[in-house]
Amino acid sequence: MALLAIDLGGTKLALGIFSAEGILLHQYKLPLEGRKGGEVGTLITGEIAKFTNDSIYRNKIEAIGICVPGIAHKATGTVWAPNIAGWDDYPLYHEVEKAAPGIPLIIEGDRGCYILGENWKGAAIGCTDAIFLAVGTGIGAGILCDGRIINGAHDISGAVGWMGLSWPYQEAYRACGDFEYHASGPGIANMAKIYIAQNPTYIGELRNPDSAAITAHDVFTAFDNNDPVAQKVMDTCIQYWGMAVANLISIFNPQKIIFGGGIFGPAIRFIPDIRNEARKWAQPIAIQHVTFETSMLGYHAGLYGAGHMALQLINGQNNSVI
Amino acid sequence: MALLAIDLGGTKLALGIFSAEGILLHQYKLPLEGRKGGEVGTLITGEIAKFTNDSIYRNKIEAIGICVPGIAHKATGTVWAPNIAGWDDYPLYHEVEKAAPGIPLIIEGDRGCYILGENWKGAAIGCTDAIFLAVGTGIGAGILCDGRIINGAHDISGAVGWMGLSWPYQEAYRACGDFEYHASGPGIANMAKIYIAQNPTYIGELRNPDSAAITAHDVFTAFDNNDPVAQKVMDTCIQYWGMAVANLISIFNPQKIIFGGGIFGPAIRFIPDIRNEARKWAQPIAIQHVTFETSMLGYHAGLYGAGHMALQLINGQNNSVI
Repeated sequence: MALLAIDLGGTKLALGIFSAEGILLHQYKLPLEGRKGGEVGTLITGEIAKFTNDSIYRNKIEAIGICVPGIAHKATGTVWAPNIAGWDDYPLYHEVEKAAPGIPLIIEGDRGCYILGENWKGAAIGCTDAIFLAVGTGIGAGILCDGRIINGAHDISGAVGWMGLSWPYQEAYRACGDFEYHASGPGIANMAKIYIAQNPTYIGELRNPDSAAITAHDVFTAFDNNDPVAQKVMDTCIQYWGMAVANLISIFNPQKIIFGGGIFGPAIRFIPDIRNEARKWAQPIAIQHVTFETSMLGYHAGLYGAGHMALQLINGQNNSVI
Repeated sequence: MALLAIDLGGTKLALGIFSAEGILLHQYKLPLEGRKGGEVGTLITGEIAKFTNDSIYRNKIEAIGICVPGIAHKATGTVWAPNIAGWDDYPLYHEVEKAAPGIPLIIEGDRGCYILGENWKGAAIGCTDAIFLAVGTGIGAGILCDGRIINGAHDISGAVGWMGLSWPYQEAYRACGDFEYHASGPGIANMAKIYIAQNPTYIGELRNPDSAAITAHDVFTAFDNNDPVAQKVMDTCIQYWGMAVANLISIFNPQKIIFGGGIFGPAIRFIPDIRNEARKWAQPIAIQHVTFETSMLGYHAGLYGAGHMALQLINGQNNSVI
């Protein structure tokens, strides 16, 4: 048995062949090189055709799982992927089905794939209830409940970057949500700019040369150099991350919270502080029974999630196909 | 076919017989009259025995569903019910199983039962994804995801009263959680006391005769009389309710939010305002696709939920029994 796993990102396409046991037998990556709309679809179906026509893999691909950087609409088979031009409502399911007729196919958004990957071969093995918190340019969560990922009525569940955490409302939260505004990658950079503007006497490294160009990476570097603005930003972020995770724990009573995405990464060092903050807010029994972990699969979580979905599809464990 | 539904509350026991079509054929209530511990268990098993020994119902009870005012632990069959003395870890499943051998049995916490009841015969008919927000002495949510209620790893999911909504943390939130502190029944009374203390010139009806004895009911009455403190309390509550509901919408992408419990009730009038507040915070697509409703079953939601669970148990739709 071979499972074809595909992980589409905003700038690259990763493909892998898994055994049913979850061994990654073969993998490679291709840059998207500015492809858009149908060109991306053609790239995907072309790569699939290489496998279905290959002398080794022909007739051995038993299922295809695809992870997409956005939302997979189960009812229509279309994909919304904000970082791929022309993918507002792209008919990926039907294109792949046509290119690989008769092979069971499942498409899922990246946050769902991350937790399914970790559940198969990463930090969430053996869990029935676990949450992958992905913090990068945006913030989202893949949520496993009773062994299944939750999709919501329109496939957009897990939009936790929109969590409101600081009453009362401010207009600044409108574009991306309160949590994401404060504690995503761009949020970290923005908080630094705000704290600098509030402190005219600040002369640290984040003021020079151009505070408008500050990145989250700069803030982490400044934190390592004991910069007071960076320390204040990280202190705020720890409180927001802790509060958000506490809310997810009170709502879901999970076994594990798994921190991933580009910010975790450098923010892994703060996980004990995040746990201390979460302990203040969360339902007291639920917080005792949850562990805080980091992604074991890192940038491979989406590919493993695609493989896991393909396996579940064959085994009849996933009913969320169109 | 007859389904025996039992709804245990903090002060009374309700019993009902449902047909498989969800028609409530027979029902009655008994006061607990201060019973505690094993006396409550004996009351329940005694009432069940009346049905299993009854000339009409004998051999016709095909399943029993029990709604409990707290948490039903699936792995152990025990119940935690904070308002019943001696029910910290009460072995209800085993007692009922012994009293009614061979009859399929399921026990669930009240918030899960409320949404299952509304899903069967109330405001959430036809929904796969819906949330019952119960606001009374405490705040909890029954959450239906993809047609099934979520329990969490230790059966304590839906503890949304613990949601953190007002960064940064204050010690006042430790006993019950930030959301419940501000927007439950006791929270409403407490907010009124705080706002009175902050306004020494206030001479409205909530100051007299004894602001220490203010109840949520007093605040609603004062609101009807245009009392400024009551208006400020309700304005705060609307914002908290809107924010909390927005968070649930961003996380779950449900079709419906159903407001129930003793406060909704009198707060039903504020649902349009709550929706306006929620619209500011929530993921913008998810908020467009959700409707705000009030409980159709009211105080019967738990009994209907117990009946629905019993039916699902027979139909193999619920795998959460021990």
